[in-house]
Amino acid sequence: MKNNQSVSVGIVGASGYAGEDLVRLLLGHPQANLKAVTSRQYAGQTVAQVFPRFAHYPRARELRFAEPNAELMAKDCSIVFLALPHGVAAEFAVPLLNLGVRVIDLSADFRIRSAPVYKEFYQHDHPAPELLAKAVYGLPEFYRSQIKDASLVACPGCYPTSILLPVLPLIRDTLIKPESIIANCMSGVTGAGRKLETEYLFAECNESARPYGLPKHRHLSEIEQEISNAAGQTLHIQFTPHLIPVNRGIVSTIYAAPKEHFTDEQTMNALAEKITRSYQQHYENEPFVRLLSGKLLPDTKNVAGTNFIDIAWRLDARTGRLILMSAEDNLVKGTSGQAVQCFNIMTNLPETSGLL
Amino acid sequence: MKNNQSVSVGIVGASGYAGEDLVRLLLGHPQANLKAVTSRQYAGQTVAQVFPRFAHYPRARELRFAEPNAELMAKDCSIVFLALPHGVAAEFAVPLLNLGVRVIDLSADFRIRSAPVYKEFYQHDHPAPELLAKAVYGLPEFYRSQIKDASLVACPGCYPTSILLPVLPLIRDTLIKPESIIANCMSGVTGAGRKLETEYLFAECNESARPYGLPKHRHLSEIEQEISNAAGQTLHIQFTPHLIPVNRGIVSTIYAAPKEHFTDEQTMNALAEKITRSYQQHYENEPFVRLLSGKLLPDTKNVAGTNFIDIAWRLDARTGRLILMSAEDNLVKGTSGQAVQCFNIMTNLPETSGLL
Amino acid sequence: MKNNQSVSVGIVGASGYAGEDLVRLLLGHPQANLKAVTSRQYAGQTVAQVFPRFAHYPRARELRFAEPNAELMAKDCSIVFLALPHGVAAEFAVPLLNLGVRVIDLSADFRIRSAPVYKEFYQHDHPAPELLAKAVYGLPEFYRSQIKDASLVACPGCYPTSILLPVLPLIRDTLIKPESIIANCMSGVTGAGRKLETEYLFAECNESARPYGLPKHRHLSEIEQEISNAAGQTLHIQFTPHLIPVNRGIVSTIYAAPKEHFTDEQTMNALAEKITRSYQQHYENEPFVRLLSGKLLPDTKNVAGTNFIDIAWRLDARTGRLILMSAEDNLVKGTSGQAVQCFNIMTNLPETSGLL
Amino acid sequence: MKNNQSVSVGIVGASGYAGEDLVRLLLGHPQANLKAVTSRQYAGQTVAQVFPRFAHYPRARELRFAEPNAELMAKDCSIVFLALPHGVAAEFAVPLLNLGVRVIDLSADFRIRSAPVYKEFYQHDHPAPELLAKAVYGLPEFYRSQIKDASLVACPGCYPTSILLPVLPLIRDTLIKPESIIANCMSGVTGAGRKLETEYLFAECNESARPYGLPKHRHLSEIEQEISNAAGQTLHIQFTPHLIPVNRGIVSTIYAAPKEHFTDEQTMNALAEKITRSYQQHYENEPFVRLLSGKLLPDTKNVAGTNFIDIAWRLDARTGRLILMSAEDNLVKGTSGQAVQCFNIMTNLPETSGLL
Repeated sequence: MKNNQSVSVGIVGASGYAGEDLVRLLLGHPQANLKAVTSRQYAGQTVAQVFPRFAHYPRARELRFAEPNAELMAKDCSIVFLALPHGVAAEFAVPLLNLGVRVIDLSADFRIRSAPVYKEFYQHDHPAPELLAKAVYGLPEFYRSQIKDASLVACPGCYPTSILLPVLPLIRDTLIKPESIIANCMSGVTGAGRKLETEYLFAECNESARPYGLPKHRHLSEIEQEISNAAGQTLHIQFTPHLIPVNRGIVSTIYAAPKEHFTDEQTMNALAEKITRSYQQHYENEPFVRLLSGKLLPDTKNVAGTNFIDIAWRLDARTGRLILMSAEDNLVKGTSGQAVQCFNIMTNLPETSGLL
Repeated sequence: MKNNQSVSVGIVGASGYAGEDLVRLLLGHPQANLKAVTSRQYAGQTVAQVFPRFAHYPRARELRFAEPNAELMAKDCSIVFLALPHGVAAEFAVPLLNLGVRVIDLSADFRIRSAPVYKEFYQHDHPAPELLAKAVYGLPEFYRSQIKDASLVACPGCYPTSILLPVLPLIRDTLIKPESIIANCMSGVTGAGRKLETEYLFAECNESARPYGLPKHRHLSEIEQEISNAAGQTLHIQFTPHLIPVNRGIVSTIYAAPKEHFTDEQTMNALAEKITRSYQQHYENEPFVRLLSGKLLPDTKNVAGTNFIDIAWRLDARTGRLILMSAEDNLVKGTSGQAVQCFNIMTNLPETSGLL
Repeated sequence: MKNNQSVSVGIVGASGYAGEDLVRLLLGHPQANLKAVTSRQYAGQTVAQVFPRFAHYPRARELRFAEPNAELMAKDCSIVFLALPHGVAAEFAVPLLNLGVRVIDLSADFRIRSAPVYKEFYQHDHPAPELLAKAVYGLPEFYRSQIKDASLVACPGCYPTSILLPVLPLIRDTLIKPESIIANCMSGVTGAGRKLETEYLFAECNESARPYGLPKHRHLSEIEQEISNAAGQTLHIQFTPHLIPVNRGIVSTIYAAPKEHFTDEQTMNALAEKITRSYQQHYENEPFVRLLSGKLLPDTKNVAGTNFIDIAWRLDARTGRLILMSAEDNLVKGTSGQAVQCFNIMTNLPETSGLL
Repeated sequence: MKNNQSVSVGIVGASGYAGEDLVRLLLGHPQANLKAVTSRQYAGQTVAQVFPRFAHYPRARELRFAEPNAELMAKDCSIVFLALPHGVAAEFAVPLLNLGVRVIDLSADFRIRSAPVYKEFYQHDHPAPELLAKAVYGLPEFYRSQIKDASLVACPGCYPTSILLPVLPLIRDTLIKPESIIANCMSGVTGAGRKLETEYLFAECNESARPYGLPKHRHLSEIEQEISNAAGQTLHIQFTPHLIPVNRGIVSTIYAAPKEHFTDEQTMNALAEKITRSYQQHYENEPFVRLLSGKLLPDTKNVAGTNFIDIAWRLDARTGRLILMSAEDNLVKGTSGQAVQCFNIMTNLPETSGLL
């Protein structure tokens, strides 16, 4: 089923949820040839043994997890995905890049342009600060041309994707005051990774909903970096994540003050038109952004398992605020799907290849 | 088990989730004597047949659902709980009150002081506007003395309870700007009642999270009424409800601008102390408000099935905002438990009777 | 993306869960051209409006639900899927067949060879008994050649598929006593359809697990028909369905007495070999049956959203019994995916087309 | 609230789900005085800090977890509950018993009369075989008088309770063939304890249903011991547990062959009467066994959080089998509630004290 112009790829750290979803997408990708997967924990086992849900792929039955080894990977793969914890990813990126392999990193290691900001949020020195200038932020809707030629792509975090896609067009078109942004987000439990911590056990999450990590969650660093870039000034926003009992999905509800006051129906309609136009100009040709119309509001169940992000918005005449809402699958558009979208761009494949 | 000074009570509309939870609480209440329950749908069946989970109560095996009849109820009950849809509740309240029965209404019918505001939010004329001045808003933490002698108590909505309890102390003590309030809430599915609508079927809610009813949900009317009262001025706030796949529980995350700027650690600590003091003064003797300390944050699983509301807060030095968070069981502190708390106050029983 | 040799298809009754999943599979099917969908409830709306999760398909944005009309469908479609309740499906099948359209029926109407048995289990006279002899039971693993030329295919029920696929090979190879079969099954809530009944509301199913419909569930009629056919004698088996809080998935755990006693390790190993061989002979070339090996046991999460059925088994030396276990997605291999598999066979397409 | 004749109790190993539920029940128990709780992991923290849901109990705010120490416990407590893993529990029981403390053990260590059977199922030598003869199996419905005076009570496992209560009356009254028993059970995830294993993470259990541990789960040892005792002969039964995504609850569906064939309505009715009578004779005065009548079937949601077990049964005239069904909360009647029921019996308290 794989065609002739296939690209050989590998995954380092394929045993977490992000890695597993990458395996799913790459096994099913018509032009990707999954040559290597690594995992200390599962070394020696086949992909089909570790993930029985992929057992029908002949490739899953023959490909075995290996110990990570940059040189072996470089021989087999022209692009390698890193699905590793922050701090660790950079260590693997360096030798791979030196060996001429292009790297798509799913960790936070190359998302932040500034090594001091990285340290402020991740509590350790950046392991490879010399690479920060080289890395491209893998948000195709805003960095497509840079991604195309990048040797190192830093895929955005799941929360940042769900916040940036609704807000960036309106900041660029100076329709909202960026410092007024309050992003209230809820995420499914796979967002925490396949981590063995009591708080992620079934009975701790089921019938539970809770805020966490506020007021300074790590993802703020990249959200603020990108918003500041778009706004042309350094600024802070509010961000509160919550954990809810679904496997996959993030809903972000974002409050912002429009630049223009709307005091009556006429000014509200005028503003609404500008917002509509802004979104259309940015997204009408985007294959994975769906602008909801009419009474529709985002719902994780409409995007789970897909690379789509659904966006809706409402103006509130009573308070003068704009409310933006988005839903995405945290593991797909929020992580692995977006990585594959970047891969397609980097390899001149149709951008939706393996993603529809 | 019921003691001698028991109070005879009835429930009109006992077949929904709020009604069922009232039945649960009143069957287990040491001083309440459940004399009558009505439900058109279940008339003729015993409580144990309709709700097998209560089958071990002898009273549940003998008490049968009846068609609603104010005169029969008035003969048997000194206090009647109405667990009916808005609009319908008022029709039952009028004859019961005329017959000298005290009424605890769980619907929205008597929560709003102003008949025009009621009409604006509920889209029909108020069925008994003459009673509005008589009704007491059943939030014990703020209306305890009025509840004590009330003949008609209007129990607050589930969202309003979860928002008002964290914000009212700070508004009263002029620590926050009330017009800055943004309440972002998530609710379990019982909040929608036992309604036969497609959107509440299991497979529509499970693995789903979604905003709804924004920007002008009905509960805003009472939230704004109470906030305006406390602030001494009429004002609007932002409120966005979300539906999440849990049976019971509301988490409210509320953003507000403090009156005082805090620009360094010293001013932040000073403000933190004032907030701490405000909450302690209002709640340290409240039996059902738990102020979380240390790193604890509210979680629905800690309050499900109980009449507690858990409250925590954080100051964000980066944005200058205060974030308040609460968790409650929407059916207990949010509805039926609060109704029983009012009942205890009205009948001079210990306020925690039947609730711990 | 649709290729030139595409087949024009329609769906009658596309608003339930089975219909929605058919829409999903056919919109994504490379050789199916979805020309018509009907639904009384949604007539006039586009597929994208009713099912926003499909909004990225251009076809979903242009195709509108229509009132069902056999003649219009016959003009546009060479194959029509019926996703209707039993009793109703037959009424649509008759005119469509008369107009030369091939019909793939997802209801129970044509699964039972005997009109009296149909009446015994479905409590009404069969609406078109003359068609019973014509219909082919749409279980590809056992009726592939008949399906190929059938004008009327009756897709098996979800429970029957999950039971028959594990048991039929062993009955055919006379390895188990068919009358000893006890099938204990659990199903996700979509198995009940998108039915507006209290018992399927979120809060009635979440945190609930319960048996239902025993001891004579309707699906027994087709299970026993097929088992009796394979065994060459009419017989009854035991079947108990349970409802569990997952969206998709059936796990069937089936107890059977082997024909041969195994009294020591040697006889047990001999029997195990025969069972292994029986399954391999029947299924090793089947694209959608996965025989689990080693310690793996079936799990709904490995098949959800796919057309696979996973099968495992264990011999219990202590009791002399054989335990068979299967997991499938009740909406895919249990309903719509199997229908598409039949469609592929009927149209000489690769059997996995649109299903991987 | 605690009355004067309170009994001083302690819990060793109070940090798991069983221990936490014991804490819940004992904090709310009117005659139990919780003097000590131990947990290596939480030593030094208060009960309220570790379990914020109990923070309203003054006792939870003052009582701190300690390192386990038999002598200190013996000074403070007249009865100690052990909520420890098997193997470890026996080590604590020995010194406590030597110090004159009565022990209620929730582990498997003292459930099995035979040390070799214990070793066969638990894969290690029994740590205190001399105590086996002394221990009483804590199933109040069948061992009430022995429990009363016991110094060492071994509380039954959660699955065994759910199976034994429906089957023992019918075995004692020789209405079923005990060797024909097939128990098919599904359990909520707390049944696995608060164990840090990947398979119990939220996203591994949510949307998952799966058999496990067959065909020789450890609980079989005590199930078969008790069934053999009742039957007067040593025998084996079939038992298959399944994991389903609920927090609390076990449903057991049990298949058995009646001793008497029922071949027509008359013999079936005669048998039905005998079964009815058997259950009534055994259970009509039992405070925690609820025999369901009419069309009612067991449902975990009706027993969650309670000490009840709901039982229903059906005769199947087509197959000649009897199907028994039960539902209980695995943590309450299946573990901690049953332990408190034993405690009440041992201390001459009303048997329902603290449990209704």
